[in-house]
Amino acid sequence: MRTLDPAEAVARARTGDRLALSRLITAVEERTAAAEEVGRLVPPGPAHVVGITGSPGVGKSTTTAALIEEWRARGATVAVVAVDPSSPFTGGALLGDRVRMEVHGTDPGVFIRSMAARGQLGGLAAATPAAVSLLSGLGFDIVVVETVGVGQSEVDIVRYADTVLILQAPGMGDRIQATKAGLLEIADVFAVNKSDRPGAALTKRELLAMVAAKPIPADGWRPPVLPVVATTGEGIAELADALADHARWGRASGAAAARRTDRALAEIRALAAEQLQQRIDEDELAALAQQVAAGHLAAPAAARRLLAGPL
Amino acid sequence: MRTLDPAEAVARARTGDRLALSRLITAVEERTAAAEEVGRLVPPGPAHVVGITGSPGVGKSTTTAALIEEWRARGATVAVVAVDPSSPFTGGALLGDRVRMEVHGTDPGVFIRSMAARGQLGGLAAATPAAVSLLSGLGFDIVVVETVGVGQSEVDIVRYADTVLILQAPGMGDRIQATKAGLLEIADVFAVNKSDRPGAALTKRELLAMVAAKPIPADGWRPPVLPVVATTGEGIAELADALADHARWGRASGAAAARRTDRALAEIRALAAEQLQQRIDEDELAALAQQVAAGHLAAPAAARRLLAGPL
Repeated sequence: MRTLDPAEAVARARTGDRLALSRLITAVEERTAAAEEVGRLVPPGPAHVVGITGSPGVGKSTTTAALIEEWRARGATVAVVAVDPSSPFTGGALLGDRVRMEVHGTDPGVFIRSMAARGQLGGLAAATPAAVSLLSGLGFDIVVVETVGVGQSEVDIVRYADTVLILQAPGMGDRIQATKAGLLEIADVFAVNKSDRPGAALTKRELLAMVAAKPIPADGWRPPVLPVVATTGEGIAELADALADHARWGRASGAAAARRTDRALAEIRALAAEQLQQRIDEDELAALAQQVAAGHLAAPAAARRLLAGPL
Repeated sequence: MRTLDPAEAVARARTGDRLALSRLITAVEERTAAAEEVGRLVPPGPAHVVGITGSPGVGKSTTTAALIEEWRARGATVAVVAVDPSSPFTGGALLGDRVRMEVHGTDPGVFIRSMAARGQLGGLAAATPAAVSLLSGLGFDIVVVETVGVGQSEVDIVRYADTVLILQAPGMGDRIQATKAGLLEIADVFAVNKSDRPGAALTKRELLAMVAAKPIPADGWRPPVLPVVATTGEGIAELADALADHARWGRASGAAAARRTDRALAEIRALAAEQLQQRIDEDELAALAQQVAAGHLAAPAAARRLLAGPL
């Protein structure tokens, strides 16, 4: 494959060339030198960034597919960045991708991309915002970031979206219900998928009670709880409305601008950590690790020595 | 509360003072200056570090409790570091803790501690190895690190244990089966819990087939797949045997020493990233984030500017 020419690839991607867009995302994902040039060429655009998360089995892929259909019917273009860190070693292929690609694969207004965690801790934390920024800069109206809602880094990846949609489903067991406590903090909109199943009303009531118990100022945003059946499309229009309402509220209240700055802040932090890793002398690190493993040196002192060297 | 005197707390912890031990772990968790002193006072010991992971609902807490009982019967002391990043905002209280504390709470040979993710990305990646090192240095024979097996950082936390135990259970659905692909890479021992339930034989066969398909050198370790029923204790003695077999193999083959160095390496990396975060000028970062959010500056350039400043 030819070396990526950032300017050419950006120009092609702007005309709808999917291969060029794919190669740009790969560059971003691998944080190559070309990726930086791409970042300079394509400043972030005004897209509505929607984070979608929930436990395995709640129907994230199906709901995302149904939302895409609704957004397309409303005339919006949609890009999806699907993060699947539950298989860090297999390159993060998503079971749901095939399904979604079949539905939307031929639609030029839809772009779907799986992101794999490459290398170090924090790789996705740096790559995902960069991919979102690129896709918004290339003019997609809505950029979805989808992650599995278990694990701190996954939660950190979606929490900086303009609007965070938390998916729940009835009958997922006590353990999964417990995660709501954490997800409640970051939710802008709740959807209860599979709402035609037994227990859906109970799940909705529980979520409403949790939202009601949350201290929210009078001019604040109170997360709605919406029943949907993603497989039939029931409630999906109302869900799209709620997401759009939150985007409007965010713009009016200034919350969206604050979230955007937080997102940039998290991205800079992640990139700084990554640039630091790149500057680390691997031979020196290996030598220090042996000393620490042997008990001759404390790990914090080793870390300081490492930072003192190359920087 | 008095300021922690590291030397005094270490001396007390060595005599079995649980409050002192708890305060030491808290210091490690919060990465205080005292924690560094503690690290110097207590070099890592020869404990067998066992990582236990699996999806929510497979019975990690029950299996850990059953293993503790078996290890105690064999005369070993046990410390457990339970990481629950699925609720990053609630401080990570474990549903299972109560159960386990009731069983083992009064046994001086058992110490169980939940770790919460504090602050930044990577916090647990730095704190968990430090806690493991402390507990091994204080003389516990077996140190267990238990995490939810979903999410890259959680997998990264257990993968550096001397022995990695992956728990599965029958009938967890397709989505959870898919995570095996990633977990297979890091598994030293598989246990199929709830093996008295329908589908257990199938789960075992699937795992055996996956292990059989893995290229393993003749003198390598082939992960065994053991059926257990943690609630009744069935198969737990055989599981404890398999974990001990792997520890012996690791010592004989040199794999254990290599894993220990990898663990130190990951810890130093995490600590270096964290020390870097602490050196960052937060005002400068906030200003840079605003420029990036406004599209006036690319994030990688902002990260470089940040690193150029304080280091």
